[in-house]
Amino acid sequence: MRVAFCGLGKMGRAMAANLAAAGHEVRAWNRTPGKAPQGVRETGSVREAAANAEVAVTMVADDAAVEGIARDLLAALPAGAVHCGMSTISLQLSRRLAEEHRQRGQAYVASPVFGRPEAAEAKKLWILAAGEPAAVKRCQPLYEALGQGTVELGEKPEHASLTKLCGNFIIASLIEMFAEALALGEKAGIDPEALSSTLTRILFAGAPIPAGYAARISATQFEPASFAMPLGLKDISLALAASEALRVPLPLASLLREHFLESLAKGRDAWDWGGMAGVLREAAGLPLHHG
Amino acid sequence: MRVAFCGLGKMGRAMAANLAAAGHEVRAWNRTPGKAPQGVRETGSVREAAANAEVAVTMVADDAAVEGIARDLLAALPAGAVHCGMSTISLQLSRRLAEEHRQRGQAYVASPVFGRPEAAEAKKLWILAAGEPAAVKRCQPLYEALGQGTVELGEKPEHASLTKLCGNFIIASLIEMFAEALALGEKAGIDPEALSSTLTRILFAGAPIPAGYAARISATQFEPASFAMPLGLKDISLALAASEALRVPLPLASLLREHFLESLAKGRDAWDWGGMAGVLREAAGLPLHHG
Amino acid sequence: MRVAFCGLGKMGRAMAANLAAAGHEVRAWNRTPGKAPQGVRETGSVREAAANAEVAVTMVADDAAVEGIARDLLAALPAGAVHCGMSTISLQLSRRLAEEHRQRGQAYVASPVFGRPEAAEAKKLWILAAGEPAAVKRCQPLYEALGQGTVELGEKPEHASLTKLCGNFIIASLIEMFAEALALGEKAGIDPEALSSTLTRILFAGAPIPAGYAARISATQFEPASFAMPLGLKDISLALAASEALRVPLPLASLLREHFLESLAKGRDAWDWGGMAGVLREAAGLPLHHG
Amino acid sequence: MRVAFCGLGKMGRAMAANLAAAGHEVRAWNRTPGKAPQGVRETGSVREAAANAEVAVTMVADDAAVEGIARDLLAALPAGAVHCGMSTISLQLSRRLAEEHRQRGQAYVASPVFGRPEAAEAKKLWILAAGEPAAVKRCQPLYEALGQGTVELGEKPEHASLTKLCGNFIIASLIEMFAEALALGEKAGIDPEALSSTLTRILFAGAPIPAGYAARISATQFEPASFAMPLGLKDISLALAASEALRVPLPLASLLREHFLESLAKGRDAWDWGGMAGVLREAAGLPLHHG
Repeated sequence: MRVAFCGLGKMGRAMAANLAAAGHEVRAWNRTPGKAPQGVRETGSVREAAANAEVAVTMVADDAAVEGIARDLLAALPAGAVHCGMSTISLQLSRRLAEEHRQRGQAYVASPVFGRPEAAEAKKLWILAAGEPAAVKRCQPLYEALGQGTVELGEKPEHASLTKLCGNFIIASLIEMFAEALALGEKAGIDPEALSSTLTRILFAGAPIPAGYAARISATQFEPASFAMPLGLKDISLALAASEALRVPLPLASLLREHFLESLAKGRDAWDWGGMAGVLREAAGLPLHHG
Repeated sequence: MRVAFCGLGKMGRAMAANLAAAGHEVRAWNRTPGKAPQGVRETGSVREAAANAEVAVTMVADDAAVEGIARDLLAALPAGAVHCGMSTISLQLSRRLAEEHRQRGQAYVASPVFGRPEAAEAKKLWILAAGEPAAVKRCQPLYEALGQGTVELGEKPEHASLTKLCGNFIIASLIEMFAEALALGEKAGIDPEALSSTLTRILFAGAPIPAGYAARISATQFEPASFAMPLGLKDISLALAASEALRVPLPLASLLREHFLESLAKGRDAWDWGGMAGVLREAAGLPLHHG
Repeated sequence: MRVAFCGLGKMGRAMAANLAAAGHEVRAWNRTPGKAPQGVRETGSVREAAANAEVAVTMVADDAAVEGIARDLLAALPAGAVHCGMSTISLQLSRRLAEEHRQRGQAYVASPVFGRPEAAEAKKLWILAAGEPAAVKRCQPLYEALGQGTVELGEKPEHASLTKLCGNFIIASLIEMFAEALALGEKAGIDPEALSSTLTRILFAGAPIPAGYAARISATQFEPASFAMPLGLKDISLALAASEALRVPLPLASLLREHFLESLAKGRDAWDWGGMAGVLREAAGLPLHHG
Repeated sequence: MRVAFCGLGKMGRAMAANLAAAGHEVRAWNRTPGKAPQGVRETGSVREAAANAEVAVTMVADDAAVEGIARDLLAALPAGAVHCGMSTISLQLSRRLAEEHRQRGQAYVASPVFGRPEAAEAKKLWILAAGEPAAVKRCQPLYEALGQGTVELGEKPEHASLTKLCGNFIIASLIEMFAEALALGEKAGIDPEALSSTLTRILFAGAPIPAGYAARISATQFEPASFAMPLGLKDISLALAASEALRVPLPLASLLREHFLESLAKGRDAWDWGGMAGVLREAAGLPLHHG
């Protein structure tokens, strides 16, 4: 397929490379040029990438970035083409993009992904997909080149966006719970690594996501960032915005917001969001890092 | 081995039966008589059960119940015998029992367990063990008859008690996070069961504990109780007491306390602690149960 | 002075009437026509009210309403005129209005007010004022006709907006604290009115704002609304938005957000924001209202 | 009257001196000897102070201290004498003391006080009183020598204890709300002193308790302690214990607990409890104290 790929950050670069390696014809655009991986042709503008594309993928940081690119996609994508939005964005934007692409005879499929950059490289992403069935079907070959599995969530793109926000809320909650439990154990004199591995083995059957976060928190390994702190705050804020629109109190999400905000107030923009555990360590009077 | 087994609730009954089935000579005592399973000889008092025992197991609801029984065990257990405490109790009591048994030439091993009554029946408990190494070793045959695995946590019984409290805090956190995410998804029109299974498959690789809680919450199945609401509040309160003694802020544990307390204020004493999700549903203006 | 007055809700109507009674020439516009009090001439559009005005007052519900009106004021106000914004709005909008009016040779003065409609009628409002000194000075005669006192807060309009948001955050916090204390006392059997009056007399020397909220909460008098629930959520959300922009964790504000959100999820849009106490009563298992 | 006064801390010393100055015959006991003010006769034991006393006052730090002294008072006070408990203690202890004194033909009156040491010196305390009416009446002359006003709260001593706990919960809430608002204002560039005085004037009519806390927080003046941090945590914990017994969720009280605990985890035991604002400053990335 002819794919326009917009956004060559850590995630996007790996994904574009995998699409090319799977035989797709990928033209890619990135705000900062010079990031295209081998096999991918870089273009000077979104419009140039989009002209003639069958599917345009967006994989960028936030609503504002998606909106900027979408303006060009709406103008330049051929009728019948699909905008496959893989960023984590707000319900509102997801809904609006669906409407605007429809008006131009194009389609919007929300396809947010779970997975760190390593997973993107290894084609181990999990992909959520929601949109008009025919359009979702057209994205299928891309999903196969990018992930280990796709979950279809119906016709409303915002359902995929919200499911992704729920997922990130859950991961952030894991960070909080492990941070609290490990600070408590550490001040009681329990070995953090032993506590972490015991609890994740017994309670999570060693599942890699909880085990990974617990291990990094118990080792106070907060850098480098796989998913940077400001993105953590952004996603929790999106969940809170959804909660306000839908009128659903989310006290735990609010608690998480406060802790990501504190992390950023302390200048930890470059840390992984798991480093939010640092504020719990400080609150307990523990040093940020083990001696 | 000659085992005195104190406490024949849902958990204890299944465990005592498994010990007897494994060939141990089990004499059991329960506050309410008539609960002994086949193969277990019921006694009229703790002291009668304890006389001549090599190991005495306590498996009761809370600190007060353990303290009451411990007074008799201290008096009646032979020198050299081991009190194997399998209840979830406070650090303070764990520490004190260790000291008091030591003074009488007995030993105390904290051996709290993870697992619902079904797991107890199926010999699938996870057992934490901490205490004097020789005493832990003497309990090993019992652990083998009761569980699928034992984690040794050193010489200090309170380390096992605290690890158990951390574990229950984590499960309670799972309840909270799933309750919030599922309420949000439901008001957005996402099918609860689909959301629950998607998230637990992707984020927890389908591990049974998170998957089980998420499934029950998404089905609004809050009864019957495997672990009753007041026990949930009790364990969170024990974690908070430890946090105060150790000076470790636990904001998420405090949030959980409020929600268990609200559940009890509403008279849900007989519900499973997963039913704490009900207060999040009500706060969102959702009916307690699906139509 | 020739005054254009935009917004004739409960607050605005009383204020416009007081301006007219003080001898100002008031032309007023309201989205729903037919609300102008005696002595005030109603116009069919904002522009018509603004043409020839020396000062234009905006007193409407939220950012969106102010923005809509401001577009017309920017176009229609004479050079040298002052937009005196008395609504509670975001820092961002306050800053932007200052900039846009400056570019057109006009001025923006943020002048949010404290006080319920009764206070507006009685000319007992408290007014915060921030903006270019000359422009603030021009608004002075209006302030005198409307309030019991004005506090000048420097040249940056957003400082007045933020001070107002802090004030409303504090009032909302009073609602929360009284709601919790009174629920606790009531379940202990203490007479709510006695508890409320004792605490406000001793701790607040009977100051009317805390005493009034405590009295209404103790009487479970949640209607009619002087300041409606959705406005409460709006102002807390504005404070949280400011906290995110400025990177200042506000855990109590987050807690308040959850409780206003719960009130709205339960359909209490028409209640006074003091009725947020209702969710604390329900959480405690108390009836919403005294028998 | 013949008064036994137990507890000569900052508060007790001032109060004992005022009782002596009012003509009462005061015998005082303190754990650390040598603290008796002029006009007060120090005794070597509680029992010696209590023998022959008409009223025994206890004014000490916590439940444990009151319990220790009460054992001696129960034994040594003459029949008909009154134990006037002025410390802030738990409901449980209040209730139990009432029962135990009654059994010995003595009476217990809970008489907790509001006021800092300066207020105690100046006879400006506020006194809550609850107990058997005749016993309360006998304490009246003491109240007159100690305070500016007494509020009678009925026959159940625990009602006075709980009202006091509610009052301290409210003051702690003021600390939290001012800490958050002032941190927000400071990062926005608003002068803290101006913000503090504006808000307390407008919202609290300048009432001294909120104005005093707001002023100290805006000045980052956290020492010396009038009411030390550990006492703050103690009282919030007592309120939370009451909330658990009465099944009343108190989310704000839980939030306060976390912040007092964090203050103590950071070693601020000697700070005034108003210094809890420090943790909000740190969370916002502000220095603990103004340059």
